[in-house]
Amino acid sequence: MVDNISDTAAAPTSPGAGTWTHGRTGVWFIGARGSVATTATIGIHALAAELVPPTGCTTTSAAFAGVPLPAFADLVIGGHDISTSPLTKKAEALADAGMIPPRIVSAVQDGLVATEAELRPAYDQRTSTTSQRAEIDRLAADITDFKTRHGLARVIVVDIASTEPILADAPEFHDRELLEAALADPARTVLPASSLTALAAITAGSPFVSFTPSPGLNLPVLIELATEAGLPFAGQDGKTGETLLRSVLAPMFTARGMKVLSWAGTNLLGGGDGATLADPEAVRSKLASKNRGLHDLLGDDVVTPLHIDNVPDLGDVKTAWDHVHAEGFLSSRMTLQTTWSGYDSALAAPLIIDLARLMALAHAAGTSGPVAELAFFFKDPWGSDVHGFADQTTILTDWAHRTGRQL
Amino acid sequence: MVDNISDTAAAPTSPGAGTWTHGRTGVWFIGARGSVATTATIGIHALAAELVPPTGCTTTSAAFAGVPLPAFADLVIGGHDISTSPLTKKAEALADAGMIPPRIVSAVQDGLVATEAELRPAYDQRTSTTSQRAEIDRLAADITDFKTRHGLARVIVVDIASTEPILADAPEFHDRELLEAALADPARTVLPASSLTALAAITAGSPFVSFTPSPGLNLPVLIELATEAGLPFAGQDGKTGETLLRSVLAPMFTARGMKVLSWAGTNLLGGGDGATLADPEAVRSKLASKNRGLHDLLGDDVVTPLHIDNVPDLGDVKTAWDHVHAEGFLSSRMTLQTTWSGYDSALAAPLIIDLARLMALAHAAGTSGPVAELAFFFKDPWGSDVHGFADQTTILTDWAHRTGRQL
Amino acid sequence: MVDNISDTAAAPTSPGAGTWTHGRTGVWFIGARGSVATTATIGIHALAAELVPPTGCTTTSAAFAGVPLPAFADLVIGGHDISTSPLTKKAEALADAGMIPPRIVSAVQDGLVATEAELRPAYDQRTSTTSQRAEIDRLAADITDFKTRHGLARVIVVDIASTEPILADAPEFHDRELLEAALADPARTVLPASSLTALAAITAGSPFVSFTPSPGLNLPVLIELATEAGLPFAGQDGKTGETLLRSVLAPMFTARGMKVLSWAGTNLLGGGDGATLADPEAVRSKLASKNRGLHDLLGDDVVTPLHIDNVPDLGDVKTAWDHVHAEGFLSSRMTLQTTWSGYDSALAAPLIIDLARLMALAHAAGTSGPVAELAFFFKDPWGSDVHGFADQTTILTDWAHRTGRQL
Amino acid sequence: MVDNISDTAAAPTSPGAGTWTHGRTGVWFIGARGSVATTATIGIHALAAELVPPTGCTTTSAAFAGVPLPAFADLVIGGHDISTSPLTKKAEALADAGMIPPRIVSAVQDGLVATEAELRPAYDQRTSTTSQRAEIDRLAADITDFKTRHGLARVIVVDIASTEPILADAPEFHDRELLEAALADPARTVLPASSLTALAAITAGSPFVSFTPSPGLNLPVLIELATEAGLPFAGQDGKTGETLLRSVLAPMFTARGMKVLSWAGTNLLGGGDGATLADPEAVRSKLASKNRGLHDLLGDDVVTPLHIDNVPDLGDVKTAWDHVHAEGFLSSRMTLQTTWSGYDSALAAPLIIDLARLMALAHAAGTSGPVAELAFFFKDPWGSDVHGFADQTTILTDWAHRTGRQL
Repeated sequence: MVDNISDTAAAPTSPGAGTWTHGRTGVWFIGARGSVATTATIGIHALAAELVPPTGCTTTSAAFAGVPLPAFADLVIGGHDISTSPLTKKAEALADAGMIPPRIVSAVQDGLVATEAELRPAYDQRTSTTSQRAEIDRLAADITDFKTRHGLARVIVVDIASTEPILADAPEFHDRELLEAALADPARTVLPASSLTALAAITAGSPFVSFTPSPGLNLPVLIELATEAGLPFAGQDGKTGETLLRSVLAPMFTARGMKVLSWAGTNLLGGGDGATLADPEAVRSKLASKNRGLHDLLGDDVVTPLHIDNVPDLGDVKTAWDHVHAEGFLSSRMTLQTTWSGYDSALAAPLIIDLARLMALAHAAGTSGPVAELAFFFKDPWGSDVHGFADQTTILTDWAHRTGRQL
Repeated sequence: MVDNISDTAAAPTSPGAGTWTHGRTGVWFIGARGSVATTATIGIHALAAELVPPTGCTTTSAAFAGVPLPAFADLVIGGHDISTSPLTKKAEALADAGMIPPRIVSAVQDGLVATEAELRPAYDQRTSTTSQRAEIDRLAADITDFKTRHGLARVIVVDIASTEPILADAPEFHDRELLEAALADPARTVLPASSLTALAAITAGSPFVSFTPSPGLNLPVLIELATEAGLPFAGQDGKTGETLLRSVLAPMFTARGMKVLSWAGTNLLGGGDGATLADPEAVRSKLASKNRGLHDLLGDDVVTPLHIDNVPDLGDVKTAWDHVHAEGFLSSRMTLQTTWSGYDSALAAPLIIDLARLMALAHAAGTSGPVAELAFFFKDPWGSDVHGFADQTTILTDWAHRTGRQL
Repeated sequence: MVDNISDTAAAPTSPGAGTWTHGRTGVWFIGARGSVATTATIGIHALAAELVPPTGCTTTSAAFAGVPLPAFADLVIGGHDISTSPLTKKAEALADAGMIPPRIVSAVQDGLVATEAELRPAYDQRTSTTSQRAEIDRLAADITDFKTRHGLARVIVVDIASTEPILADAPEFHDRELLEAALADPARTVLPASSLTALAAITAGSPFVSFTPSPGLNLPVLIELATEAGLPFAGQDGKTGETLLRSVLAPMFTARGMKVLSWAGTNLLGGGDGATLADPEAVRSKLASKNRGLHDLLGDDVVTPLHIDNVPDLGDVKTAWDHVHAEGFLSSRMTLQTTWSGYDSALAAPLIIDLARLMALAHAAGTSGPVAELAFFFKDPWGSDVHGFADQTTILTDWAHRTGRQL
Repeated sequence: MVDNISDTAAAPTSPGAGTWTHGRTGVWFIGARGSVATTATIGIHALAAELVPPTGCTTTSAAFAGVPLPAFADLVIGGHDISTSPLTKKAEALADAGMIPPRIVSAVQDGLVATEAELRPAYDQRTSTTSQRAEIDRLAADITDFKTRHGLARVIVVDIASTEPILADAPEFHDRELLEAALADPARTVLPASSLTALAAITAGSPFVSFTPSPGLNLPVLIELATEAGLPFAGQDGKTGETLLRSVLAPMFTARGMKVLSWAGTNLLGGGDGATLADPEAVRSKLASKNRGLHDLLGDDVVTPLHIDNVPDLGDVKTAWDHVHAEGFLSSRMTLQTTWSGYDSALAAPLIIDLARLMALAHAAGTSGPVAELAFFFKDPWGSDVHGFADQTTILTDWAHRTGRQL
């Protein structure tokens, strides 16, 4: 890791972005003390101070020139987390792991301390002693209070907490009254944490981004409530590595008329996410989310074995191996292998910053419901069945310009 | 290699193609006895007889539905080659090598014998005893005679002969009169074989496709002559493997704002092409062609060491390893490795068939000059600086529909 | 696949092997119509006729010069299988798959027909209507009859049938009388097929080789019986690919003082074995067998996620990817990735021929019990805790020379 | 990179080593300010202080238990270098690059300052104004002075300077008087720097280790002089990565009777070594050295294309891709690909420390001439044609115990 702070200090952080006159934006992280949120927090402070270039961000590229988006310096960070471990300690660990240059972490110490003051206890099912309704109200109040204290135009809630297991359906997920009754009952825990959090965001009038495969806002009753409240929301499961690669490569085979027979994948990762996904139940939702796009792009006949292994010694480095077997002209066979290796949090963090800026745009423009045009960022995009990356790229930039003109 | 003839015999070979009412099309291969041409020849006969599905072809996909293109059964094959080794023997070797199922080769024996009768001696600088002008006239007469005998509406000339060294510039390449004087002089060999052949094609009124990195039609004086003659032409250097992959992956890094620092590549191949490229001079033109797109997509600062090694024991199997090193958010680093392995001729042949069909369309529509919209097929596209594969795909299909409507 | 029959026809098949004066040897395959057995059968016939060199065999190398071993031409093949599909048809399929040159298959047609006549129905638990004792006697009689008819000095039984699930322990596996009582009861199926077969081999006085991870002879009561009968036996689970590589690489890390932290592996395979191992129960015995050596060589702390995926389109080609993460000097990290790809049956068959020859040697020399010195061939060697490949190689050749001198 | 100082502080650094009663040992680095020497220097200080475990060292393993070797705390470091850049600055750069944990570098600051005081200017052909003889005497005096000041029993000279081009033969390399005449002539530069340095070591009575492929002591006249002086010496070209792997894998193919057809390799590296090897002349000696073992192990027919590319952005990380194509049973083919990635200096440094200890043993035992038994450490071992790693391992440990018993 070469430190290029000095080389790039003068780089404009948002080249050619349009003027934004719609107030300051709050970014509220669910899982605010995790690796991804800490990396995003360090990044926002460093970008605001123009200490680093916005490498890895999409919304600062020439394709977004003229689109009005909040400046990095106008983003204010807060969040919920179950953990109480200090943000500065987590930041040090990321520097020790070789992911972030130590001097960047040092340079944003004040920012980290300021963000620390904005973090609040998350909902924790294991320790909660009240009804879920009371928890929702408490979380919503945290967000509203944050918004008021800082005079923010809006607060974008981004869920980057640990992946939850696949959720069995329930009548309460389809009926507001049934849901409210269950929420009011202290003896029941009808919503998983991610959905409870999404409902708190809706209650606080916040746009919601689901960067994990957890259920989150993706329950019929919550979709209805968010849409009625005139809120935009987007998900699901950030497309940071292997799936990104697949969404680029699969359309190549299609365009060239090759028939993909199998696409096998193995993911090795440590860190918190590795440990979470070591749970066979939690991993099922992740695997389902990862394979959906592949089948959509290549057909249901493709054989797609897929594994996620917890390898603690790899820390935050994620390594994915894919093996593609395809048939070409006159039944001839070909294979493609890819090995992608990178720091999971560093791949995710800039996407989250992009999403916060774009959701601010969507909200300012009065967009309501799932923002399908953000499929570019997700493994399993809400409201969209476009999985090819090039198509997603075009759709995203067209939408950004179109929406920007509505402001 | 599983033989799926029986499974697919009923598959329509050109699903939804528009009706073609512009006569039969000749396909004239320069290097007609080589692996690629032999594979394409077997393929055209097998497709015409509906023995195989058009796997690996682009022009039969849904994206081309409604575009009028010649049917496989309306393609007639001829060609030039220095070698006199029988086509049937080469076909057997391809079956023995595990690339083409033996029963497909057996099934097209009659077709191979018919094509054999249409092959003529190529220009061979080492043995030629006449002026280059005389050679050009002889080659052009071969093509014209082929066209007349079969009552063809047009003959598409496709150069798939061995790669030639990089050519030093000369005044004759810029001035018709100087060129003609040199061609008339039996003591001079001003044009390399690929360019002499291109001039023969122009003389015969044929569209020309340069599937190799050899100079071919790419000399100012020849471009002028072809354009004046109202002929379409396209090149250069078929994008079959590693470069295809690069043209898909490089835009991904750009779209995600990552900074690619280096992109190293190693190609291992045997077969005729491996032996040709073992010549350090010949390989230089190939390497230049391969790296051009990468620098165009990612900037000139990217470090791009690239090798092509002749490994005779690999036969027609080509294996390419790429190693990409990129910088992401907060200076974090990531790497991507790809290993692509396939039969070179089986990757190239369907593209050649696509090109023959599309050049017939261009010619029938009266297109003249370089057909930049065929960049999809080439490492170093003539008339185009679009190297990203998704953009090339869109441009190609748009052009095909637009041109088809002009017929 | 280049056919090199003609080049190598004159190659001595057993360079420098010592003179063998101990009669002809029978080789009896359990699973005689499977891919591995068919490949071995084709190979023995081709080697006997000196049509091919013994590439892939160990016992023909210079290291075995002077060791008395049966010649290829003195091996006679028979076997049991549940399937009744003709051997010649299976051989054709192997040629079609690109694994064996078609002309080798043609050249051994007579041999295949001769072997076909020696194949008998295997024990099939699903259809058997008699007691297991009756089945054992029938199988043993098949072997004895084969031996008598051909005047063989001995018959080596080699189990290469499908992998069975891990077996729960039972009192019958430890007590002869309990076992016999259970075998005599037509209502009970106390032994899995592999162990029933092993007992038949013991009954027929045959040495036994377990090339699969199935229980086979590895039950206390069977080990006791075989040893009492003065029979040598060897196993278990042929070391053909990924595990071979691991047994070579792991000692390298140890010799250089590096600390391996994790060793992850993914195996992709189709064919019969792929389908068998798609059963989660069957795969458990295979995975256990594969990881045992790694932990023995590197310690129990190494994290070793391992997968076997059934990918039918790959046919008999097995592809294994391994990712090794190690710590070196001053806590610096390094990674090694390996991708091994080959035809599973072609990797296994020569080992089986080697084992048949070496077990003939062991039996002729009066060896009884597990032949630990054959660990070289096995993932999970019986009677040995030596897993490093170089050590296994030395032990094997020393043993062969020492035993040869006892004849 | 996880910091495990605290976990391992108590680990014995030389488990079971025999008692050493032969004085303190000097280690004199040629290229003392380079990455490898700096890493080794940090390592020796850290090991002496028992701050780190000796991971990556061979001589501390159980296989060397009882062999008398100097303790880490009894090694004193000095050296020559052309550069004058401070050692502490280089050490910081290695920490910034993520190779060495920053707190280890901090912990050995005093040691680095002490070593800094022992570094002297190397011979620099470009700036030297005296005869080579005068330079040799100056360098030898530096070593002798170092030895005297610290009361050392011996000083081991280790060449880890930049790789030099292949050297053309000359009469002076075979004749002492011709050599001395040339050395005395200020107008001539008969010896390359590495050989001049080797002669200085001989003059100072020091054992010499050539860890690079430069000529060094490998000239007939120098070998004669060193042997006459009763000095042990060892080389050449440290086996740290790809070649290590090859020396492990090639014997596997041989033991299993497979025929390796081609073994292609590509090395990507930045750092100082990458820049040096970007020189086509310098790289030739390296490539020759790397391929020698492969041909020795597998025969001269193996096709072995090999590249070393300078990729500055990779810094000290070296990545090597190998592709092996082999023929197995019945002409079936298989491939093996390996990707090895690690910090070059961290791979080399522990071997240098091992070599210093073992050369001290050799010298104390009165060994003279090339120490062939150290082939374990070298790509192109002097005095040995054993290239298989397992054999080298056995030879090394046998020698160490045997020599230790002579003390």
